[in-house]
Amino acid sequence: MTRILVTGSKGTLGRPLVRELKHRGHEVWQLDLQHQADEMYIRADTSSYRQLERVFEQDYDYVYHLAAEFGRINGEEYYDTLWQTNVIGTRNILEWQKKKRFRLIFASSSEIYGDKHAEILSEDIPLYHSIIQQNDYAVTKWVNEIQCMNFEKRFGLEIVRLRFFNAYGPGEHYHHYRSVVCLFCYRALHNLSYTVYKNYHRVFMYIDDFIPTLANVVDNFIPGEVYNIGGNEFRSVEDLSNIILERLGLDGSRVTYMPQDAHNVQNKRPDISKASKAFGHNPGVTLEEGVPRTIEWMRQVYASTVKH
Amino acid sequence: MTRILVTGSKGTLGRPLVRELKHRGHEVWQLDLQHQADEMYIRADTSSYRQLERVFEQDYDYVYHLAAEFGRINGEEYYDTLWQTNVIGTRNILEWQKKKRFRLIFASSSEIYGDKHAEILSEDIPLYHSIIQQNDYAVTKWVNEIQCMNFEKRFGLEIVRLRFFNAYGPGEHYHHYRSVVCLFCYRALHNLSYTVYKNYHRVFMYIDDFIPTLANVVDNFIPGEVYNIGGNEFRSVEDLSNIILERLGLDGSRVTYMPQDAHNVQNKRPDISKASKAFGHNPGVTLEEGVPRTIEWMRQVYASTVKH
Repeated sequence: MTRILVTGSKGTLGRPLVRELKHRGHEVWQLDLQHQADEMYIRADTSSYRQLERVFEQDYDYVYHLAAEFGRINGEEYYDTLWQTNVIGTRNILEWQKKKRFRLIFASSSEIYGDKHAEILSEDIPLYHSIIQQNDYAVTKWVNEIQCMNFEKRFGLEIVRLRFFNAYGPGEHYHHYRSVVCLFCYRALHNLSYTVYKNYHRVFMYIDDFIPTLANVVDNFIPGEVYNIGGNEFRSVEDLSNIILERLGLDGSRVTYMPQDAHNVQNKRPDISKASKAFGHNPGVTLEEGVPRTIEWMRQVYASTVKH
Repeated sequence: MTRILVTGSKGTLGRPLVRELKHRGHEVWQLDLQHQADEMYIRADTSSYRQLERVFEQDYDYVYHLAAEFGRINGEEYYDTLWQTNVIGTRNILEWQKKKRFRLIFASSSEIYGDKHAEILSEDIPLYHSIIQQNDYAVTKWVNEIQCMNFEKRFGLEIVRLRFFNAYGPGEHYHHYRSVVCLFCYRALHNLSYTVYKNYHRVFMYIDDFIPTLANVVDNFIPGEVYNIGGNEFRSVEDLSNIILERLGLDGSRVTYMPQDAHNVQNKRPDISKASKAFGHNPGVTLEEGVPRTIEWMRQVYASTVKH
């Protein structure tokens, strides 16, 4: 049996990942910030080295390090927490890895590509092109990758880096820093206004296409490698909005259409062939299938407040 | 009269800079971590936004932001303090700049060039070449430059970045994270062993060649610009050691000669023509002149402990 620790286990990706890994027969330990009843859960803040001491009293074969402050605007508004959790926190995990020698799976982000307007983003771009990320969240994720690479080189640590491109679906609870799918669905369901930026494209990936890939990493772990984990569906956010409006029978009068978000990055599209080969990554759920499932999940979770 | 704040004013560079700026007739305010008697000094930790509130109750024309955790090994051993002070601290200063609109002079480092083996390092290299800095200190300084660039672009802030290459001379008190000149002089004077890495070259800059340049920045402040501030003397550390040994009449039996420092960067040489034009930067003091002055200063400061 493989013993696995998942940091950030109560997050949007942590919860389904823990479920999947348990389902596959692994011994799964959890770490997050809240208190929990579960005896295989340890409350700790990764930015506190001391709190991690207890976590690493036992050994793990693999650690999925998902614990992080998430998102561009969240990162700007909570930059102090961002740097503490993402950068001091990840360095703490690396220090423990140096001592305990588990294998580390690090959750990076598509944000590290900054505003690189490559037709298709392949994993080695940042090694050959200088990228100035435009917000602190993106910078922390690239810093984390540098920390990982330096620790691999200096101490022979075994690390795999994964760059996540927007996943969406059931399990993502609303607040205003969440993914665009979560935002639009929630706000449309509640008859709240939202803004659609025109000509703004993203690759969308449904959560059920994502979690099996993530769980597969322990079965084909190649130290030092880095993989894009993204979807196949390259669609405009206007398309997304229209799917939601149609599903809910709304006319879009609560939607504002704008030319472009100055602080955000347009048209990010990953090359996912490396993850396809290594982990059988093969996203197939379309927005037309995934969005209704997300809406139905939200109707249940927010049953007392939804308007449609 | 120009009102200037110097953060890190009690550091090796802060002290002589404050002296020079006062000498030129500026109104100079100081910020550092210790308590001080001086009424134009405010104790504050830049990583604490709240402690900065009092500092910025008054306005400044210019802020020299020198407050930082310093050095490669120090940065590795105190990485938590490093990230808090250098990155959260600098972001705090930028947030205050956004409110108060002073002009900022940011102290960056030659370390941002990583192991780039360009014959001559010109300021625009990191914009065209991907550089993976090999230690957290170097990464924090590059992150700070990215933060500066992003705030310039997003909020129209006026910032000049300066990349310091090793300065040395009187005023640099010994501990084992300090410059190679400080280390060798102190240890030779105390009959302590030290290690010389062969074929390892650096550009050396005497403190008196450095401080006037630094003070000149307020007289020709061009927002958005970045400058290397380094010396002309490209010498091996073995040369440096030999100058010290000769001065002290030592035979070098306490020196260990080694092939190379695995974690350090070889042969960094800046293009300083931009700073020469803008600020009249013209370093002229040779190691043969500067090292004896440094040794004489150390003899006084460490009079009770020196052996030679």
